[in-house]
Amino acid sequence: MTSKTNRQILLVEKPTGKLAPGNFKMSETSIPEPKAGEVLVRVRYISLDAANRAWMHGATYRSAVEANTVMAGGGIGEVIESKDPGFAPGDIVFGDTGWQDYAAVPARHLAKMPRIEPLTHLLSIYGIAGLTAYFGLLNIGRPKAGETVVVSAAAGSVGSIVGQIAKIKDCRVVGIAGGADKCNWLTSELGFDAAVDYKGGNVYKDLKAAAPKGIDVYFDNVGGDILEACLPQMNLYGRIACCGAISQYDGVPSETGPRGVPGLIVVKRLIMQGFIVMDYMEQRDQALSDLQSWVQSGRLKVLEDVIDGLEKTPQALIGLLAGENRGKRMIRL
Amino acid sequence: MTSKTNRQILLVEKPTGKLAPGNFKMSETSIPEPKAGEVLVRVRYISLDAANRAWMHGATYRSAVEANTVMAGGGIGEVIESKDPGFAPGDIVFGDTGWQDYAAVPARHLAKMPRIEPLTHLLSIYGIAGLTAYFGLLNIGRPKAGETVVVSAAAGSVGSIVGQIAKIKDCRVVGIAGGADKCNWLTSELGFDAAVDYKGGNVYKDLKAAAPKGIDVYFDNVGGDILEACLPQMNLYGRIACCGAISQYDGVPSETGPRGVPGLIVVKRLIMQGFIVMDYMEQRDQALSDLQSWVQSGRLKVLEDVIDGLEKTPQALIGLLAGENRGKRMIRL
Repeated sequence: MTSKTNRQILLVEKPTGKLAPGNFKMSETSIPEPKAGEVLVRVRYISLDAANRAWMHGATYRSAVEANTVMAGGGIGEVIESKDPGFAPGDIVFGDTGWQDYAAVPARHLAKMPRIEPLTHLLSIYGIAGLTAYFGLLNIGRPKAGETVVVSAAAGSVGSIVGQIAKIKDCRVVGIAGGADKCNWLTSELGFDAAVDYKGGNVYKDLKAAAPKGIDVYFDNVGGDILEACLPQMNLYGRIACCGAISQYDGVPSETGPRGVPGLIVVKRLIMQGFIVMDYMEQRDQALSDLQSWVQSGRLKVLEDVIDGLEKTPQALIGLLAGENRGKRMIRL
Repeated sequence: MTSKTNRQILLVEKPTGKLAPGNFKMSETSIPEPKAGEVLVRVRYISLDAANRAWMHGATYRSAVEANTVMAGGGIGEVIESKDPGFAPGDIVFGDTGWQDYAAVPARHLAKMPRIEPLTHLLSIYGIAGLTAYFGLLNIGRPKAGETVVVSAAAGSVGSIVGQIAKIKDCRVVGIAGGADKCNWLTSELGFDAAVDYKGGNVYKDLKAAAPKGIDVYFDNVGGDILEACLPQMNLYGRIACCGAISQYDGVPSETGPRGVPGLIVVKRLIMQGFIVMDYMEQRDQALSDLQSWVQSGRLKVLEDVIDGLEKTPQALIGLLAGENRGKRMIRL
């Protein structure tokens, strides 16, 4: 194995403002030897997620990514060599492989995955994105038929699934996304009832027109001004599923929070609840079964944005933070 | 009945900044004649609540109080005359009587109360204050023995009960209040484990010292900077019961919300939930039974701040908003 090299992308310094290509560099090293209890994985696909950027700020639900280490990131890979009885060469696994060709990962940090085709679905609809959309919408948003569901970052990996599941649950669905093209795509291709272009007008007014009966469930991927625009439009007993705060990740975090907290939460008896997909893993089988049946029946479209080449990873993340992707973005190695 | 007069306090203009005595004036009129379906009530005690001030801003969970009308407010009174079969002279009732000696109130807006002594308890421990503390803490905060519960406006009508119930539930209890005297009183008289003086030091640091294991339940009466100081100290899966936002009521509402929303809500998987006591009225009998048994066994002290004279009502509310009361403030007529 050591005749080949392992390409790695390092985070050379933590960004103080917007993330830039210069924050990363490519490096080459030898392929690692797995120690006892470790598994050597050849990475096939690297997942790109807005949360990657949040990890650079400090500890979140995981420890911070430190400068001069391999950039962290989830990946799908194939087991090459195993020093753990739970894994064997050829197994397909998911774990935090990082941005590199090969990773030696402790077996307890890996999940064995089914060898389905296309493998990309393990990072999109049957991966973190699909499960996050499923659990956040159904367990926290708890939409009832006829209710209005609003989702931000609606053209992204999670948002595009949230909106489609909400349609399956017979809700009125409004997506918030950046740009007229994305908004048209949400309504014409994904079946959203309406879309609001946050770059194009007045979000508050456009949302009021798109959700004339108010908002029962807001699936929040972005925080900031868009959360502030949704709060006064929430209906009594509305639910806000707090999935992320993309608007706050890239650059200097906002000095203020949204107005209306906690006043509107009291008056409207709202629930705002944060969640992480890992909290719901004991319900994973049911979620995957539902997602598979919706995909197979054609009710749920799988949207992937696959880019070739490890060297493209930094720019792909920068572009994702700027909102250039539709659906789940990933790198193929 | 018309030989006597009815003194009323009118809100003559809505305050634009801090509430002042000049926003009110005393007026005299004849005692009203109840119409069919109405009940004539002689008001005995008027409840003073921070929410009175919020009603002047606009519609909340009730319609706004308008200028040149009798100031709204809850009261306990005795039925003088009834044009509704559900009430008879001598009945003790609770309702929005407003700030006046006599009120003709639609019967459907009145609740018949037991004739207990002292009657003041119907406005404090067995009234809105006690039930708000009970339902907010137990149904939304859901404290477990050994957890840390923090409550703001801790010397107030609701906060002082929240802290005592949390002690009954075997929690570590930290109160936030204004001034060293109040803080001493919370720990020496009410059994709080610690108190933080928000006027006296650094709330964030003092809270960290008082709640070294972090906060599991925050019962928020105030919003604003104190909510912002609590958010980063919440433990994983913590619960924030949003009861009110006193810090925002008197004056111009804040231009910003608390930092950390929604970022910390996501990372820590918090629940922030607003509530209004009326939402839980079907569980009222159980609540009253618990509260009575705690009062009778001496585990729960009833704290009342009774001021004599209708003419004192404006100043009593202004003082309450400035935090001068301990326990439940009310006016005796």
